[in-house]
Amino acid sequence: MRFCPKCGHQVTMEIPSGDNRERAVCHNCDFIDYDNPRLITGTLPIYDGKILLCKRNIEPRLGYWTLPAGFMENGETTAEGALRETLEETGATAVTTAPYCLISIPRINQVHLFYLASLPQPNFHATEESSEVALFELKDIPWDEIAFSSVAKALAYYVEDSKTGHFPFHEDLITFNSVGK
Amino acid sequence: MRFCPKCGHQVTMEIPSGDNRERAVCHNCDFIDYDNPRLITGTLPIYDGKILLCKRNIEPRLGYWTLPAGFMENGETTAEGALRETLEETGATAVTTAPYCLISIPRINQVHLFYLASLPQPNFHATEESSEVALFELKDIPWDEIAFSSVAKALAYYVEDSKTGHFPFHEDLITFNSVGK
Repeated sequence: MRFCPKCGHQVTMEIPSGDNRERAVCHNCDFIDYDNPRLITGTLPIYDGKILLCKRNIEPRLGYWTLPAGFMENGETTAEGALRETLEETGATAVTTAPYCLISIPRINQVHLFYLASLPQPNFHATEESSEVALFELKDIPWDEIAFSSVAKALAYYVEDSKTGHFPFHEDLITFNSVGK
Repeated sequence: MRFCPKCGHQVTMEIPSGDNRERAVCHNCDFIDYDNPRLITGTLPIYDGKILLCKRNIEPRLGYWTLPAGFMENGETTAEGALRETLEETGATAVTTAPYCLISIPRINQVHLFYLASLPQPNFHATEESSEVALFELKDIPWDEIAFSSVAKALAYYVEDSKTGHFPFHEDLITFNSVGK
C-alpha cells in the first residue's frame, strides 16, 4: 500500500502508537491499514466412498488436481463459503458434515479450512475454474499432481482416517518456503 | 475504499470480469480490492479447573469481561495468534491444547476461533488492554457482564462439556443484528 484508500494521500510505514507492528499509516486522515491473514474455505466432497477432485483451469497450478476451495467472502459463514466454492468449481451441490482440517500457512498469510462434505447426487461438471471434475477412489488419488500442499495434507488425513472410520478435527501448519504452492 | 492503495487514483465499485461480486476497481493500474473476513483468535485459558477472564480496558465493551482474543496477524499460525493475544491481554504464558470453537459472524465479516489452553502457572496481571485479569470458577462466570456473544458461546460450550469431561470441536454462527457486540 502506497496511498491511503480513504483520502488518497501517501501513506508511511510505521508502528502506530499503542501498537507493536508496522502498518501503513495516513497522516492526512489518520487511517491505519490492518492487513490480516485470509481464510480459504473448501470441502472434501464424498460420494459412495470416492472423493471429488477438480483439475485447475486457472493459475496458479493450472492442470493440477485440487479440492474445491477459495477465499471466504464477506457476509458468509465458513461453511457457506466452502459450499459456494464447491458449487462454483465443480457444479456440485454438496452438504457439509463437519469441519475437518484447519491448516495455517504463515508464509503466505493464509489459513485453509476444509469441511467434510457429502454429495447427495453424483452431479458435477467442468466449470470455468475446473477443466475436469471427477470422483477418485482413495487408492487412485493422483498424489504427484495435487495442486497445493494443504490439499495434499487434507487428502492424506482423509485416507488415514478412512482406515478407522473415525474422522476427528485436524489442526496443522505448512512451513514451506515457496510461495503459491 | 475511495482511492487505489497502489496508485492513488479514484476507484469505482463494480463487478470485475469473471467475478460475481462488487469490488473496488482501479482503472488506472487495474488493482482490484478483495476485502475478506477477518479471523479473531483467542484462548479459554484453564488453571486448576478455573477459567481466566479479562475485563476490557478498551472500547468496544469497556468494563465487560472477555476471553483473551484478537485479530490474527500476518506471519503467524492461528495457535500462535491465540497465544500472543493471551500474553498481550493477560500477561499469561498459556499452552494451547486443542482448537475448540469456530464461530462465524457474517454480519461483521469475522470468524472467531478459540483454543482450549492450559496455564502451567497462575501468573497473570492487568495489562494495557485489561483493567483486571482473574480466574473464575465455572459457577461464578459473570454471564451478565460478558463482552461478546462469541465469548459467551465459547464459555457456555465449556461449561456444558465440563459435565462430561469431553471437549469436542464446536462450530457455530452468530446472526444477531447489532454491530460490535
